[in-house]
Amino acid sequence: MTVDRAAVEDLLGEYGGLLDHGRYDEWLSLFAAACRYSVVPRENYDQGLPVALILCDTRFMLEDRIMALREANKYNIHIDRHLIGLPRITGARPGEIEIEAPFAVYQTDQEGETRLFATGIYQDRLHTAGERLLIAEKLVLLDTAAVPTLLATPL
Amino acid sequence: MTVDRAAVEDLLGEYGGLLDHGRYDEWLSLFAAACRYSVVPRENYDQGLPVALILCDTRFMLEDRIMALREANKYNIHIDRHLIGLPRITGARPGEIEIEAPFAVYQTDQEGETRLFATGIYQDRLHTAGERLLIAEKLVLLDTAAVPTLLATPL
Amino acid sequence: MTVDRAAVEDLLGEYGGLLDHGRYDEWLSLFAAACRYSVVPRENYDQGLPVALILCDTRFMLEDRIMALREANKYNIHIDRHLIGLPRITGARPGEIEIEAPFAVYQTDQEGETRLFATGIYQDRLHTAGERLLIAEKLVLLDTAAVPTLLATPL
Repeated sequence: MTVDRAAVEDLLGEYGGLLDHGRYDEWLSLFAAACRYSVVPRENYDQGLPVALILCDTRFMLEDRIMALREANKYNIHIDRHLIGLPRITGARPGEIEIEAPFAVYQTDQEGETRLFATGIYQDRLHTAGERLLIAEKLVLLDTAAVPTLLATPL
Repeated sequence: MTVDRAAVEDLLGEYGGLLDHGRYDEWLSLFAAACRYSVVPRENYDQGLPVALILCDTRFMLEDRIMALREANKYNIHIDRHLIGLPRITGARPGEIEIEAPFAVYQTDQEGETRLFATGIYQDRLHTAGERLLIAEKLVLLDTAAVPTLLATPL
Repeated sequence: MTVDRAAVEDLLGEYGGLLDHGRYDEWLSLFAAACRYSVVPRENYDQGLPVALILCDTRFMLEDRIMALREANKYNIHIDRHLIGLPRITGARPGEIEIEAPFAVYQTDQEGETRLFATGIYQDRLHTAGERLLIAEKLVLLDTAAVPTLLATPL
């Protein structure tokens, strides 16, 4: 099955860019109506532990989560920068693509200091919707469980 | 309008690679004859402040700037490494494409220590020139105004 | 000559992803039967010094090297994360493509601390094998010679 790599990269580019602009409504529109978003430390995942730092298994929960982040960010003002590396296509079925992509997120605080915030890998199940792709499932595998102020930034 | 994502990525790959090799003449040739290059801290930009850290609104000014950097770098010897993330296509008209791409620049000094130098986002207006794309306008939005020794490295 | 940029990015995505998963056998299968893999600090390279930190000029040597890393990693447990930036196509002949791509590698230790491990650039000579590309030669140019615990992580 031929996979449209450009469409996958379009989606990932939108994903990181919209988050960094704080355009959360448009970011939410990248997800399918039925979707699942979770953030799990790699260590837990490798050991089969079910503990997620964040788990939204409906679109409503994800919207709710974003609303909470917006509120929290009034008091924790910072700039995020997502760098998403070249994706791998790991599976393809009619109407569905599975991909992986590594990422690094940098955070700049109000004093102007930029720090590496988190690294990890996205494992996504994408659905085709016409010419577009939508995120049906996104698993954010974090390289560490020791993420400071985790709640303040969507990954 | 269909945008040739591969051409956009070619251009960005060249942009970062030529800078890191110090091949500034070839880097300059990625810009259109009439071009604008500016570096602005995100904070200023968001507040509508016009203050740019660097502003070259002619090709001649950009060449002049690069000449000065070459001279300065005789005394500040270092290696740059640009990592440019997946671009977003943000606009397209006949003959013109608008894109965004996140970046991180690392700098390695003569003692061999590598540090994160800057993160931010490129906002580019590109012109089609046959099969190639040229940079008509490049706005480098920096995540912080607190960039050390900014003059020493083109972003 | 038209180069299939998507195939190049597929290969690089696989390269980094398989390393970070520790799937070394599959990673080895990205190399051609006759291949060369070397890691050289940029400073040595620029001065024409032949000293490589790692040099495997047969596939057997590369397999042997990976075996040693596996053994060493039983005592130095960590997670790697490769971020590979947009590649440049630097040459193309029938059956062969030359590319460059910048990279950053992050390492997370058992305490959960993530650090920048190395930055540099890949200079690869790729062979076409049907629809796939294989690595005939990979030169890893490191931005610094001062890489801590270099032996513990394939770049």
